[in-house]
Formats: sequence, C-alpha cells, structure tokens
Amino acid sequence: MSKVLDKINIPKDLKGLSKSELVQLCGEIRQQMLMRLSVTGGHVGSNLAVIEAVVALHYVFDSPVDQIIFDVSHQCYAHKLLTGRKEAYIDPEKYFSVSGFTNPAESEHDIFSIGHTSTAISLACGLAKGRDVKGETNNVIAVVGDGALSGGEAFEGLNHAAELGSNMIIIINDNDMSIAGNHGGLYQNLKLLRETKGKADCNFFQALGFDYFFVPDGNDVNAVVNALEKVKNTDHPVVVHMCTVKGKGYRFAEANRESWHYMGPFDMDTGKSLEDTVDAETYEALTAVYLADKMRKDPKVTAITAGTPKILGFGESLRQQFPKQFADVGIAEGHAVALASGIAKAGGKPVFGVSSSFLQRTYDQLSSDLALNHSPAVILVFFAGISYGSQTHMGIFDVSLVRNIPDIICLAPTCKEEYLSMLEWAIEQTEHPVIIRVPGIETVSRDVKLLPEYAYPARYEIVKYGTEVAILALGKFLELGERVRERLETEHGIRATLINPRYVSAVDETILRALPKDGHRLVVTLEDGVTDGGFGEKIAGFYGSSSVKVLNFGARKEFVDRVTVEEQYFRYHLTAEQINADILELYNSLNH
Amino acid sequence: MSKVLDKINIPKDLKGLSKSELVQLCGEIRQQMLMRLSVTGGHVGSNLAVIEAVVALHYVFDSPVDQIIFDVSHQCYAHKLLTGRKEAYIDPEKYFSVSGFTNPAESEHDIFSIGHTSTAISLACGLAKGRDVKGETNNVIAVVGDGALSGGEAFEGLNHAAELGSNMIIIINDNDMSIAGNHGGLYQNLKLLRETKGKADCNFFQALGFDYFFVPDGNDVNAVVNALEKVKNTDHPVVVHMCTVKGKGYRFAEANRESWHYMGPFDMDTGKSLEDTVDAETYEALTAVYLADKMRKDPKVTAITAGTPKILGFGESLRQQFPKQFADVGIAEGHAVALASGIAKAGGKPVFGVSSSFLQRTYDQLSSDLALNHSPAVILVFFAGISYGSQTHMGIFDVSLVRNIPDIICLAPTCKEEYLSMLEWAIEQTEHPVIIRVPGIETVSRDVKLLPEYAYPARYEIVKYGTEVAILALGKFLELGERVRERLETEHGIRATLINPRYVSAVDETILRALPKDGHRLVVTLEDGVTDGGFGEKIAGFYGSSSVKVLNFGARKEFVDRVTVEEQYFRYHLTAEQINADILELYNSLNH
Repeated sequence: MSKVLDKINIPKDLKGLSKSELVQLCGEIRQQMLMRLSVTGGHVGSNLAVIEAVVALHYVFDSPVDQIIFDVSHQCYAHKLLTGRKEAYIDPEKYFSVSGFTNPAESEHDIFSIGHTSTAISLACGLAKGRDVKGETNNVIAVVGDGALSGGEAFEGLNHAAELGSNMIIIINDNDMSIAGNHGGLYQNLKLLRETKGKADCNFFQALGFDYFFVPDGNDVNAVVNALEKVKNTDHPVVVHMCTVKGKGYRFAEANRESWHYMGPFDMDTGKSLEDTVDAETYEALTAVYLADKMRKDPKVTAITAGTPKILGFGESLRQQFPKQFADVGIAEGHAVALASGIAKAGGKPVFGVSSSFLQRTYDQLSSDLALNHSPAVILVFFAGISYGSQTHMGIFDVSLVRNIPDIICLAPTCKEEYLSMLEWAIEQTEHPVIIRVPGIETVSRDVKLLPEYAYPARYEIVKYGTEVAILALGKFLELGERVRERLETEHGIRATLINPRYVSAVDETILRALPKDGHRLVVTLEDGVTDGGFGEKIAGFYGSSSVKVLNFGARKEFVDRVTVEEQYFRYHLTAEQINADILELYNSLNH
Repeated sequence: MSKVLDKINIPKDLKGLSKSELVQLCGEIRQQMLMRLSVTGGHVGSNLAVIEAVVALHYVFDSPVDQIIFDVSHQCYAHKLLTGRKEAYIDPEKYFSVSGFTNPAESEHDIFSIGHTSTAISLACGLAKGRDVKGETNNVIAVVGDGALSGGEAFEGLNHAAELGSNMIIIINDNDMSIAGNHGGLYQNLKLLRETKGKADCNFFQALGFDYFFVPDGNDVNAVVNALEKVKNTDHPVVVHMCTVKGKGYRFAEANRESWHYMGPFDMDTGKSLEDTVDAETYEALTAVYLADKMRKDPKVTAITAGTPKILGFGESLRQQFPKQFADVGIAEGHAVALASGIAKAGGKPVFGVSSSFLQRTYDQLSSDLALNHSPAVILVFFAGISYGSQTHMGIFDVSLVRNIPDIICLAPTCKEEYLSMLEWAIEQTEHPVIIRVPGIETVSRDVKLLPEYAYPARYEIVKYGTEVAILALGKFLELGERVRERLETEHGIRATLINPRYVSAVDETILRALPKDGHRLVVTLEDGVTDGGFGEKIAGFYGSSSVKVLNFGARKEFVDRVTVEEQYFRYHLTAEQINADILELYNSLNH
C-alpha cells in the first residue's frame, strides 16, 4: 500500500515524483500519522492540516540549504517524516524516538528548538540577515499558523521582515483556528481575504509591504507546489496565504477542531479517547466552577485567557454563558496582563489564567503595566513545577521570574482549600497585583490554617512545631515536606518543624527570627522550581549573617526534554530519602 | 501676554474658548513649555508636536471621566499643564515638582504610570472592558506615537481593541519618527496614508477592522477638535490618524528631530546645549569605536538596536557606513533578541545593545529563542544599576531577570579593558549566548587580569588576597569594594580579600570553597542591582550549609522615582562607611 512513501527517506527523494504520486504520498503520510497519533497522542489537528504544505515545501525547496522554520513547531510531524525520521512514524517500536517539536539535536533539517508561538518570523529574519551578511543566497521560509499571528513577536517580525529587502518567504497557514477559535481584528481580514480569494484591496500583509500570494486550497498539494515555485528564490519578502482544514482527512478531528488540537491516544475507528478518565478533581475544573459562580454573582469579575481557555476550565459552553465577562485575547499573553491591569484600574475584577511557561512572555507587562500601577489584578499560574514534557514548555522558572518584581504579592497555596481562600481574597482586595501558583493538576485537601487576608507582611503557617530542623516546603511540595519530616522522626528521632510559607515574594521575618531562638539550627527549603533565584535562596540570604544553616532543594537551572518527573526528582535530590540523607549529613556535622 | 493661559487651570476651563483662543492658547503653551524645557531639559520634540492634539482632547472630552492614556507618556507635558499642574510649567521654582511621565500620584487625570512604549492600547482595552462590565459609558482614548506601533504589545492591543465592540478611540500621532527614524513595513503604509490623505484602499487600521479618520494637520487645533467631535461617544473602536511635526514651532528641534527627541538644558535663542560637554570617555563611544572597527574587518559582525541606536554610540553618519551590518528594528526588543538568535544560527556575529530597563521586554525571547537554541549572540546591557531617574526606567532588575536562564553566560566587567576583552571573546566564540552588563556611563581603567576566554566554569579574579573577610564586588561596584577594603585595613586593621566575580550567572566553586579553608569567615557581596534574586543571594545559597557568614548589599526591591543616587546608596546601606559598619558589627560578633 505505502508504495510512494517506501521510496522517500530524505527530501531529495521527492524531486522526481509526479503530481499524482505527490497526492498519493500525502494520503499515505496521513494514514501513517493517524496510526501513530492514535497510539502516541499529539497535535492531531495542526499536523493533519499541513501535510500537503510540508510535502510541497520539501518538493520545491532544498532543505537544509533552504531553511524552513515552523512556528510553534507543533505541526512538524510530516517534516520529520520526510527528513530522515520516517521510522518514528512507521515503526511502533520507534514512535517515541522523536519529540513533537523541531529540535536541531535530531536533524540538520530542524533549525531551531521551538515550542512557544509567534517566534518563527523573527528567527527567520535573523537567518535571512545572517545569510545576507555572508553573501549567500538560500531561501528562508517561515511557516506560521493563523493563530500565532496575534502574538506581538509575530507582528514585530512581520514589520521588520517587510523591509529586509531580500529573500524571505512567509507561509501563513490559515485554518481559521487558534487552539480554540481565533480572536482579534486581524482575523476579520483573513476572513475577507479567504472570501475574496485574496483579491480584497484592504490586505493586512500588503499594507505592511509584502508581495502577497493566495492559495485557496492548501490541502491541494499541487496547488501549493505551484504557488511555492512562483516565490522560490524571490529577492524580496513575500507572504503565501494558504487555507487549510484543521484535522484534514480525519472526520472526528474535522468535526471538533478545538478538542482535536491536541489529543491523547484514541481509537481510530470511533475517535474515542483511550485515556483513562481522571476521576480526581482538577484545579482547572475547580477554578471553572468557582469562577463561573463568582461571575454570575458579580458582573465585575472578568476571566481572561490568551488563547488557552481550557486551562481555566472554560469549555465552549461555559464561555458562551459569559459573553461580556470572558475575554479570549488570542495568543497575546503580554496584552492579557496589561488588559488585566486596565480592567482592575477601572474597578473590574480581572482573573488571568496562564501556564507557567507562557508567563515568561509577560515580564515587562507584569513590571511596568501591572506592578508599577498597583493594579489589583489576579494571575493564576497553571502547570508550574517539574514535569515530564518538552524543554520548550517547562514550569520551573516562574518563581525566579516574578518574585523580584516590586509590589506583586506572589502566593503558593498547598491545597484546594488554601487556593480558594487566596483566590477569593485576591479577587476582592483592591491594593495589589496577586499571582497565585496553582499547586499541580489534581487537587489535594488538607486541614489548613486559612488567613482572613494574604496581604503583607508575609505570615507563614507552622504546620508542625518541632525543634532543631525546620522544613520550609513551598506550595505543592508541602506533601514532600511532610514525608521528609515523618521519616526524620521515625527513622532518626529528629522532630522537625514543618512550615507552609504561603508567600513566594516575601519572608515572614517574625517566624524566621524566632526559629534559631527556639533551637532551630538547620533550615531546609523545598520548592518545585529552579533553585537559582528561587524561594530558597531568599531564605539563604536572610540567614546569611546568622549561625543558622540553610539547605536549598529544587530543580537545577537547565533545559530538560522528556525526562520523567521521577528521574528529575532523583537527579535533583528531591526524593524524601535523598533529602533526609542530605539533612542528616549536615545535621550530624553540626553535632561534631 | 499669556492671556488665555491665565484663565486655564483645569480642563473644563477650556470649554468656552473660541477657535482663535484655542490657537492662541497653543502658542502660549508652546512658549511656556520651551522656556521650561530650556532650563529643565526633557522630551522636547514629542511634547512640542502634540500641544494642539492635547488641547483638542481636553476641549472635546471630559477628563477624568473620559480617560486619556498617553503611550510612553513622554508627551504628557501639555496634558499636565492643563490638568491642575500649570505652575510646574510656568513658575521656575516649581519646574521640578512634576515628573516627565504620567503618574496617578500627581493627578486623577493621569490614569497610569507609564514609561515603556507600546502599552497604551492594551491598558486602554482594559479600561474599556472594565467600563463595559460595570455598565458605564465614558470615552477611553489611547494616544500612541507612530514609533510605538512597532512594539508587539501595541499590535496585540490593536488586534484585541478592534473587536471590543464598544467605545475605544485610538489617536495615532504620526510624525514620521521614532526616537530615530522609523523602521518597518508598517511605516510604508503610514506614508501611503499621509500621501493619499488617508484615502488609500490598503489601510493597515481598516484591515484590522477599525473605523478610520485622517487628520492631515494635527498641529491645527481646530481641525483636531473637528475630528475628535466626530468620534466622541462612538460605540465602536476608531482610529484617528493625525500627522504632526516633531519639534513643532521650534526651528532647531524641527531641523534636527533625532537630537531634539530628548535634550538637556539649552539656550533658547541658539538651540545650543548648556550641558557641560563630557570630556570623559563613555562606554557608548568606546563601544561604537570598537564595533565600527570590528564591522569593517568582519562583514559577519552585525549591530542591532531596537530604536535606540545611540546607546551603541551609532549616530546617523556611522549608521550610514553600515547599511547591511547595522539593523534598527524599531521599538521591538523581543524581535531584536530573536533576530540576533537567527543571525547567530546562520553564522553571523550579532551584537544587540539595549538598556537594562528594556531588556525586561525580552525574557521569553532570551529563554526560548536564544538560550534554548544555544545561539552565540551577544547582548550588551547599558544603563544598568542604581540611577536617578523615573520609576519607569530603572536599571536594577536585569541581573535577577537573566541570571536564572540556562545556557546564557552573563558577565559583569569592572573596567574598559575587561569590557573589551569580554566583548571580543563573546563575538568570536560560537557556543553560548553572552550578556555583558556594561559597567556604567564613563569608562574606568584598571590593571585587570584578563582571561583568554570567559566560558564556564566561572573563574573569579582575586584582586587582593587577604584573610578573614572576602568582598565580592560585582562589575562597576569593584571600585566600592576597593574603598570598603581600604577602610577596613586602615581603620580597623582587617586585611580583607577583594574579588572581582566577573560572572553573574555562575559561581567559581574552586575559589568559594577555598575561602573558608584560607581562614575567611565572612563573605560580603556588593552589587549594583536589587538583592532579591540577585548575585548575592546565589552566594548566600552556596554558603548556606557552611559556617561562612554572608552579607548581601544591593538595592531594595522597590520602584524609585527621581531619588538621587546618593540618597539611594544611603537608603540601601551602600556607602563605604555603612558597609564597613555592618561588616564590623558582624565581624565583632564572630569573635565573641
């Protein structure tokens, strides 16, 4: 059956194919990709949509001399399959041998490691500039989905690309979808261009100065080939706007494009997910229930997402219940923070939900737009902490990012009761920006001492009072702290104090000063994030001039790609056993 | 003479003025503003350009019920003058009673503290959204200069504003200039719109969905009034594109618009600067000389700026010498970092110069586009450290921002010899992104031990070897460390070790481990930046489990507005006298 695909291993194998073979090849790739996706899960919709475009790109251009950059790169599967990594899509034994993103460590055809959106045009501008100063002549091609165009970096890149004055080809893969629906004025123009077959006078790309080409059916491989052949070796910046169908060729994915953007393992025939349904309550769901109730009672409460409504638990039907109070700004995290600042300034009560990895895109807005203006907006940081996953989407850097910005109160709840208590206070207070680090995926419940308010000064919760050793276990790691404490007591007779610090951005000086007076000689910090610049170093700095010893535990400053959580814990000395051993070693040295 | 201005104290005093009185008032304001600017210095060009627009805004709208947000807010002088702060522009005794930026602490007419560009539209979206959820009906107006449109946040804001579906008025103040010339494809469209009196079919703003109005002469106050009256109380988002002349009404500023963007005190009649010419060599000038020479010898070396070419020392004539190798991407710092990553990946040698305060806009690009891709780009951070100036442009946060990103080597030279040595190495190496924190404005020279290369592992420079106390003085603060050391020796007989750490992003474990073995019991860190998350806390964390005591000196985590450097040093215990006293107190306690 896979007759054409059998002959294809690297891009140049495509060169001799006939038009009908190209069509057949796309069908074969689609079939293989679906088989693999049904086992491995992955970005189904976006990858099915671009098979024809990718085949056409490798048919027309000469990678890696010609350089193809995939924005977000969660649509690179066909590219990988065509560039020496076919086995990873055909041989079930090798399904997990490649990542879901481009990665130069895998192939010379992958120019960059990419996982965040809206960066490809800027990176491609750099390749083009580097080519030009070296006097070379290859093509540089950026492939950008319509959903990524709302991100500021994409616009900064477009604006510069338009005046580069040399070869630069930008493929706009327009399937009328971001992860959820698209949002923003730009998408009205894309719609107009689709409806007029690219002929409308008012053209966003032409306004910026690009030569513009329109491909009505980007899933017609030969039509894409024709368009690309026209722009190959262009001496100026061009945009090729092609329309594709998200989930193309798989009816379930075409019918429900948001759900099939990313999907775990599924049954090919029925489209049914094969993942065990999680019975446990998640913080996403908890947040959605809480916020929806709050929004019904108070029209000033406004939920904000930057293209990922589901991390707040807001599915389609819930979003429709709040046409005014739910704002999806598209992929534009910086804007979302500034928007929240403005809403708060106007007396609204904004809550912006964002994943730890994407919070990185908002530092200046957090500082200049939000903190400097003391705007009482609430930011919920999801997916924080050590996780299995791509090096492009790590959740360990948020604490070191935000804890040094003046005026922002950054809180780390340990359980759902504390999370809801902090969230309720944060929404109702009117003095400070508040960032809450959501403690993991599944909720936990504990008998926690709640505070009536979480303003400064910071007040830590003493969970168990002991002596000699104090364990400051931040957020989700309180549970780890409990295990460390128990082990110290049962195995070594050390009755340690266990503390829930609650606050990431300030220390409880009263409690910290009291600890040595109460006989504590060793303070241990546990945090689910990088130690460099993290919570623990703040404690080390506090005790620097005292006789109290401090041990900081957390993640190492490094990019980590698809390493299990267990292995990372072990690598960073974050198992209860390792922590106990380290504590004991220091503890024993203090007694000699 | 100032007859109309005499009657005006708050916006409503404008309401009864005739057309000719409005014209006269603008002239009077211009005269007053020039007199004050000639004494205080300030953003001359941008403020002279918008006088008519600001008078018209306050004539047509009802601030503060109607909310006017000035992007960057370095064009707010006329606004301040018309909103209860006239004396600060008329009475020389009160010239310094207001800041150069909008500030809610000064007036209810200033909605936000703003100093970074490209934020006003996003903030205005928030005000509009907050208004809507509260069911109110005021106008929200964002005033944005053309130069700020290239920043990603401005585009994210425009994209969202276009679909807000309620009142939102965006004034594009188009004077065909950023700080230097404008850059990017967008400016071709602004030019086309100017040339066609706003009638061109291909219209960037209409493409995004805005209702669009064009004002050919934005320095004709009554023309602006007419335009604003048309859009007042609009129920949908509109853009008013008005053309103004930067430096309007002052011939020297009109003739040399880049130099007069910001100007110190000057002689009104001749336009000559009254500031003492700095005889000392600056790092800007040193960088320009070095880079120009390097670029001549090696066509792969590419200098990048995001709208501020002069911080690299590149004036107009120098820029013209390198049409291919000098890239001004406009105000788009994020793009500049990604561009640098791409250039490096293509084998070029990019050097991006940026001020500490604007480096904040690039965190995700530093992490995802640059560090994750190990791109050997060089970033020079100017204006880092404690300074007198606006709370919107502080230089103390860069170290805590960048030192926790994996793979980036962050260096802090102490003098010009070390700076040039690090810069030369950074440009020629091909392994790592390198950030160099430029040590101040005026160069200093010292007898420094240079390294052949500055890769990891970090190697500190021992400047003076002593005993008991070790002073780690980062970058520019080495000079402070020298004074502290001398005082300790001459006044107290303590012969301290003085160390130049060279590296911000990693520790020299060999030297740090050797210090206690060599009898050092106290380690002092001095850094010209915030202690929270800074260099010193890293040292405190390193020594947490040892018996070495650590004292961290640096700036407090706070926003500071126009406080002298001396006063901040005193506040943060950063005078040599205070540091010595703190050291002695701890030192003496160790001996008891």
